[in-house]
Amino acid sequence: MSAYRDEDPRIHDIKTRIRIMFQDITTLLLNPKAFKDTIDLFVERYKGKNISVVAGIEARGFIFGPPIALAIGAKFVPLRKPRKLPGEVISEKYILEYGRDCLEMHVGAVKSGERALVVDDLIATGGTLCAAMNLLERAGAEVVECACVIELPDLKGRERLNGKPFQATMP
Amino acid sequence: MSAYRDEDPRIHDIKTRIRIMFQDITTLLLNPKAFKDTIDLFVERYKGKNISVVAGIEARGFIFGPPIALAIGAKFVPLRKPRKLPGEVISEKYILEYGRDCLEMHVGAVKSGERALVVDDLIATGGTLCAAMNLLERAGAEVVECACVIELPDLKGRERLNGKPFQATMP
Repeated sequence: MSAYRDEDPRIHDIKTRIRIMFQDITTLLLNPKAFKDTIDLFVERYKGKNISVVAGIEARGFIFGPPIALAIGAKFVPLRKPRKLPGEVISEKYILEYGRDCLEMHVGAVKSGERALVVDDLIATGGTLCAAMNLLERAGAEVVECACVIELPDLKGRERLNGKPFQATMP
Repeated sequence: MSAYRDEDPRIHDIKTRIRIMFQDITTLLLNPKAFKDTIDLFVERYKGKNISVVAGIEARGFIFGPPIALAIGAKFVPLRKPRKLPGEVISEKYILEYGRDCLEMHVGAVKSGERALVVDDLIATGGTLCAAMNLLERAGAEVVECACVIELPDLKGRERLNGKPFQATMP
């Protein structure tokens, strides 16, 4: 899938009207039109792509994932921090800049062969997204793409996804 | 506002098709139609009620709040655990069955006089919802209602909201 067209006036609008400081997506959420445009851009990208799973990463991936899932008719699968999911889980540890963490997914949430989209607010080093993709792939799903609103290019997270499906971010 | 009509066939459908065990909303999220029907029922209840703020409680309120906010054209305000929001915050401590906790909201996220809806997945003792309402009211907002998907009636959380705006749950 190609990158977003630079000329889409809504992207310019989102970027110039909303001050995203310190990678703070809450300022985006305060503007209903900009929030809706953000979701619409993702929905237009993923609609009709036979995606049946949208997996959102706790906690800010929960804000962007469900509206996309609802609009494309996919299920929403929360990927959570340890001991937050009530059922049986599979776990994936990963390394952050400041320590270690772990993501968990319910066993049975995803069926083998399903096409999945991973959603988070931000890609930094890419460690969390890698852990999320590993969980889905261990369950037999095909990760179509990772979708984030913000990218921190200096941290080269995109490169860490080498050999994994591409990600799309707001350009 | 009145309670949901018992006869709405979608409610019956959600309750019978989806096995919500141990108050686990993730089973609901796995069924795209049931998840959409859940959101639609809330949207029909709140659309046209001049609500400009939907406040969602971390983390599962983030799953249900944003789709409602997008559909009624309101902003989404995340109410988060301590030290999660990047800007200046106001805080509200509260007591749980198993200890103490705290919710925070960004200063300036809500303007005085705005009409707000509070969204969480579940009401147990009502302590978290009370803290959320206090935050919004301290910022000058009027809390129109609290909306939850699941109620645990044995814990009498609804009574704890006495004198506060009513809540609506899936009947």
